[in-house]
Amino acid sequence: MKAAVLQQPGQITMEERFFEGPLPADWVEVSVDAVGLCGSDVHYFKDGRIGDFIVTSPIILGHETAGTVTAVGDQVRTLQRGDRVAIEPNIPCGACGYCRTGRYNLCPHIVFFATPPVDGSLVEGIRHPAAFCYRLPDGLTMEEGALAEPMSVGIQATRRAQLSPGSSVLITGSGPVGLLAGLAFRRGGVDVTVTDVAAGRLMIAENMGLRTIPFAQLAAVQERWDGVVDCSGAASAVQATVQAVRPGGVVVWVGMPQAHQIPIPTFEVVARELDIRGVFRYANTYPAALSTLLAEQRHLHHFLGRIEPLERAVDVFGELAAGNTSSLKIFISPSGSRL
Amino acid sequence: MKAAVLQQPGQITMEERFFEGPLPADWVEVSVDAVGLCGSDVHYFKDGRIGDFIVTSPIILGHETAGTVTAVGDQVRTLQRGDRVAIEPNIPCGACGYCRTGRYNLCPHIVFFATPPVDGSLVEGIRHPAAFCYRLPDGLTMEEGALAEPMSVGIQATRRAQLSPGSSVLITGSGPVGLLAGLAFRRGGVDVTVTDVAAGRLMIAENMGLRTIPFAQLAAVQERWDGVVDCSGAASAVQATVQAVRPGGVVVWVGMPQAHQIPIPTFEVVARELDIRGVFRYANTYPAALSTLLAEQRHLHHFLGRIEPLERAVDVFGELAAGNTSSLKIFISPSGSRL
Amino acid sequence: MKAAVLQQPGQITMEERFFEGPLPADWVEVSVDAVGLCGSDVHYFKDGRIGDFIVTSPIILGHETAGTVTAVGDQVRTLQRGDRVAIEPNIPCGACGYCRTGRYNLCPHIVFFATPPVDGSLVEGIRHPAAFCYRLPDGLTMEEGALAEPMSVGIQATRRAQLSPGSSVLITGSGPVGLLAGLAFRRGGVDVTVTDVAAGRLMIAENMGLRTIPFAQLAAVQERWDGVVDCSGAASAVQATVQAVRPGGVVVWVGMPQAHQIPIPTFEVVARELDIRGVFRYANTYPAALSTLLAEQRHLHHFLGRIEPLERAVDVFGELAAGNTSSLKIFISPSGSRL
Amino acid sequence: MKAAVLQQPGQITMEERFFEGPLPADWVEVSVDAVGLCGSDVHYFKDGRIGDFIVTSPIILGHETAGTVTAVGDQVRTLQRGDRVAIEPNIPCGACGYCRTGRYNLCPHIVFFATPPVDGSLVEGIRHPAAFCYRLPDGLTMEEGALAEPMSVGIQATRRAQLSPGSSVLITGSGPVGLLAGLAFRRGGVDVTVTDVAAGRLMIAENMGLRTIPFAQLAAVQERWDGVVDCSGAASAVQATVQAVRPGGVVVWVGMPQAHQIPIPTFEVVARELDIRGVFRYANTYPAALSTLLAEQRHLHHFLGRIEPLERAVDVFGELAAGNTSSLKIFISPSGSRL
Repeated sequence: MKAAVLQQPGQITMEERFFEGPLPADWVEVSVDAVGLCGSDVHYFKDGRIGDFIVTSPIILGHETAGTVTAVGDQVRTLQRGDRVAIEPNIPCGACGYCRTGRYNLCPHIVFFATPPVDGSLVEGIRHPAAFCYRLPDGLTMEEGALAEPMSVGIQATRRAQLSPGSSVLITGSGPVGLLAGLAFRRGGVDVTVTDVAAGRLMIAENMGLRTIPFAQLAAVQERWDGVVDCSGAASAVQATVQAVRPGGVVVWVGMPQAHQIPIPTFEVVARELDIRGVFRYANTYPAALSTLLAEQRHLHHFLGRIEPLERAVDVFGELAAGNTSSLKIFISPSGSRL
Repeated sequence: MKAAVLQQPGQITMEERFFEGPLPADWVEVSVDAVGLCGSDVHYFKDGRIGDFIVTSPIILGHETAGTVTAVGDQVRTLQRGDRVAIEPNIPCGACGYCRTGRYNLCPHIVFFATPPVDGSLVEGIRHPAAFCYRLPDGLTMEEGALAEPMSVGIQATRRAQLSPGSSVLITGSGPVGLLAGLAFRRGGVDVTVTDVAAGRLMIAENMGLRTIPFAQLAAVQERWDGVVDCSGAASAVQATVQAVRPGGVVVWVGMPQAHQIPIPTFEVVARELDIRGVFRYANTYPAALSTLLAEQRHLHHFLGRIEPLERAVDVFGELAAGNTSSLKIFISPSGSRL
Repeated sequence: MKAAVLQQPGQITMEERFFEGPLPADWVEVSVDAVGLCGSDVHYFKDGRIGDFIVTSPIILGHETAGTVTAVGDQVRTLQRGDRVAIEPNIPCGACGYCRTGRYNLCPHIVFFATPPVDGSLVEGIRHPAAFCYRLPDGLTMEEGALAEPMSVGIQATRRAQLSPGSSVLITGSGPVGLLAGLAFRRGGVDVTVTDVAAGRLMIAENMGLRTIPFAQLAAVQERWDGVVDCSGAASAVQATVQAVRPGGVVVWVGMPQAHQIPIPTFEVVARELDIRGVFRYANTYPAALSTLLAEQRHLHHFLGRIEPLERAVDVFGELAAGNTSSLKIFISPSGSRL
Repeated sequence: MKAAVLQQPGQITMEERFFEGPLPADWVEVSVDAVGLCGSDVHYFKDGRIGDFIVTSPIILGHETAGTVTAVGDQVRTLQRGDRVAIEPNIPCGACGYCRTGRYNLCPHIVFFATPPVDGSLVEGIRHPAAFCYRLPDGLTMEEGALAEPMSVGIQATRRAQLSPGSSVLITGSGPVGLLAGLAFRRGGVDVTVTDVAAGRLMIAENMGLRTIPFAQLAAVQERWDGVVDCSGAASAVQATVQAVRPGGVVVWVGMPQAHQIPIPTFEVVARELDIRGVFRYANTYPAALSTLLAEQRHLHHFLGRIEPLERAVDVFGELAAGNTSSLKIFISPSGSRL
């Protein structure tokens, strides 16, 4: 099987890969039809690292994945050949305290796609536990199914925020995760406003029916939200979350902060008795992510329209690293079936 | 009635005060027997302000209060003359969204003792709604009853932390609130460790049966706690809370931060999916505070032993402002009954 | 002001009423434009009692209320003359433990419209605390505003159920509360199925876009729901809630049970570790109820269409008591403004 | 290895058993030193069934287990030969929705000791996943370690009840689970009262420092508790839970109900907005159970004192089935090491 392998920052080459040994009894084989590229993939491509995660040997990137089941292990009863699936790109240990209490995203032994040294999905075929492959609802395309990964981050944000229908949320950052989180909150009956420095992105948000406010005008606004969710990681936005939330409100930090330390108005956190909650990946979100994508399918076209063959991976990453694209999301089709 | 009135920073004079008008039907009159002095009182004495709260006209300080009921309003059924009570030093509006949802500590219209321009309890007698006066359990002294106020902050910290029996908590800061919070967490079956830069305070903590660790050694320790609660407000301690907690753990900030902004390792908050929760005063804590004080009464002697007449208020505040005392807590007895 | 007064079961006469004394400073006067009639009103009309609540002296019925502000107390800042408001028909004490912790619906001292001996709103004008009067969103009619009362019960059910978006709920009973609860759950992203013995009501549910299943077929269905909410009070439905929920699921009982005791399959509650949660009226629901009504306004026409003058109250109650109406809801307009 | 095998109701014979195949890499072998006998074991011995669980082929009973590690799989890092361990008697699938969200006690694929057709621990040695074997704290005996199983049920009850320190709980039923639950609640700062029809058991509860009230006097008592926990399964007690709890309080049903259906005052559940929560076994409780046993060790002597060799299993079961014993708990030592 062809794979796009990151050899070192900036260098991706095509290699041949093979499955080793028999297929485990509760795993499946999947032909990879669509992989969405994500900011973290681009970080590894460009810098060879994200925080403490460092690329020290060749690695296959890609973790927003959908494909077609081509083989199933002996004990798999939930899936069969030909099923179209979204792939949750992780394998937690299942035995540690985090796994056993439902927070497997914090499992210290977790294997996660495209996080060094674990390979990702920019390869024609992969093997994965059936328990982490989810049948796509009829009517969702492969690319839309691959969006279940960033949508899962949005779902995790809604679960951490615990806002009830009729309450209000401000989302700082209108990249793919911010916009998908906006759809996830709205599906729960929450009134969503999105802010960003990029006017173009706010137009997409408005087109999706979300309220918007330019980030530059935020400080002047009197309104205070029940919840504020940062999906940017920018220091100014992270600080703004604490200012924009009402007393007793909830702040959720989703975006990986670009600075190691950010000055936070801690006095506000205490004197207004705020909650600040981190979001790291997700756990048990895929079914809700897929049903949310189906419910909001009419808005997903903003994420679609650009899909490339595996061989063009290096060019596409170069484009993304240079910031040379207006696409909200670029997909690659390793199997070629979506081209 | 004699009152100790802060005229301007550093200047306290004795004045005569009187009740005005008839006693409201659901209020009581209380002879003030014991008032514990708190860091916030000292701040107002010394600097004339805490953050945005500024002393602009003469004010009576003091809010940790216990006393004896001397008269009851016509509709009061829960208290009678002679009852010994702890006084919750606030009157929320009862009608706003915060009051109606149980978070009256965030009520924008709340009246709170010794917070400008509201007078506190360093006066021989006060009037207060019966609903915020709590009969002392037999066996608790007036001074111990006055500790229900700082203990309430500790109870609020336990409720915000939501740690279950058998889990572990680290408390940074071993002043009165930190130590009382330690007792409150322990009563809930939580394993408590206290850290501070002051060795003397750690000895008190150990004497109370709590584990201790010098703050200087904290960074070198491998252990990570289920919860970390700052009761100091010091920037280094606030930062340490985020480092010392386990992935998925809970950080509670109780101490009013001394700096307006504190650099926080936000990456840790996201990548370890932490919860940070502010604590501002308390709501609905007095019954639990009093029962905790009774349950832990054998440890309260550390807080007792020093009680002064109202006339000495200015000297005592001067001593506290200069940091010239080894007492964990100093009480004043406005009625003189405890001298 | 004219009032429709229940003298004894089955007998309603028109009387003249007057406001006594000055308007309290934080109260308003409201001209009552629309009152929806509810099953509990009909019970009092027919039987003179509901459980332990017994009519022992003449009483004004009606508690689903909307109207126009005609005067405001001196301290009222949130409302002004001419404002259109929905009225939350209760006045909790504000001081007891339930009020102070946000569950004022359990206040033992609560005053509730049309619950003996407290008068309701079938009268031309009433006085009420401004804090319990909510301005109607533009675009909602008075009758739609009066629906905020039964919708509040639905909102309370969603809060007690705590189902997350993407989960499923079965509602047993498709009366006004069951249907409005269906809209409330759907607004929170929950997949709603309604069951009833009455085929006509299920047609309305389907017309609202909710799934339906005849009650007779329920036992044969394999599906198990994440939550099951009874809005009927019928013994067979209450029992079915426990059978129809999945292991670990949530059962909510909203309908006032018609039998004092109902045999419950308690083994199922234990062996499948269920949650059963009662709902009694509501607390802090009106803003969410009004925004839900606005969001689902296109479905409210099923509840509208029948509004009668105050003088016809006795006839309308007779019709309702005899079960002689096909209307989902009948309104009365005491002020006559809606006729 | 010798095993005590239930051949049919009332008949237990000794058989020889062997381990089959190699030890799985993440499992351990344990020499079984102490097994506490439980009401469910006795039910199977006497009746051959509990509800839908039916003994259809020979089965080894026993599930309250402690022992000594005799061998460890290749990948086991947390345990070594000679370690003394308590054994959590289940193996959940780890992949289903319940396992992945932390409620593995509801796993439909769970393997649970001594639940047909799965063998229990009345055998000299067993193999078990290391993840479900917990090192005993120094100072706990093997019999005390075996109590971690019934104590786990008590811990699960505390987690379902969510009572905060200072609140009150009534426990109906003072068998081993009721008494251990009492210790678990008390450790969380809850004020515990125990009721039962058996005066002797109440004396033990009192001896443990718990309040008591004879069941016959309960109906006459005015007090209402914040939580009421049934550990008896008796219909009269289950009904009493709903009567004895305060409005808005929490009822927990732990005891497996002896009747299939129990008439419940559902009106009370609705009109007082109660919560009723089932408890089925436990999940993630063993560490807390062991630390609670250690903290309350001075009270455990009531459970100890009677330990028998494996060969006497049939006699002991006969004694228990006949109700011919005054021991609160009887242990068997399959390895003989505790005799």
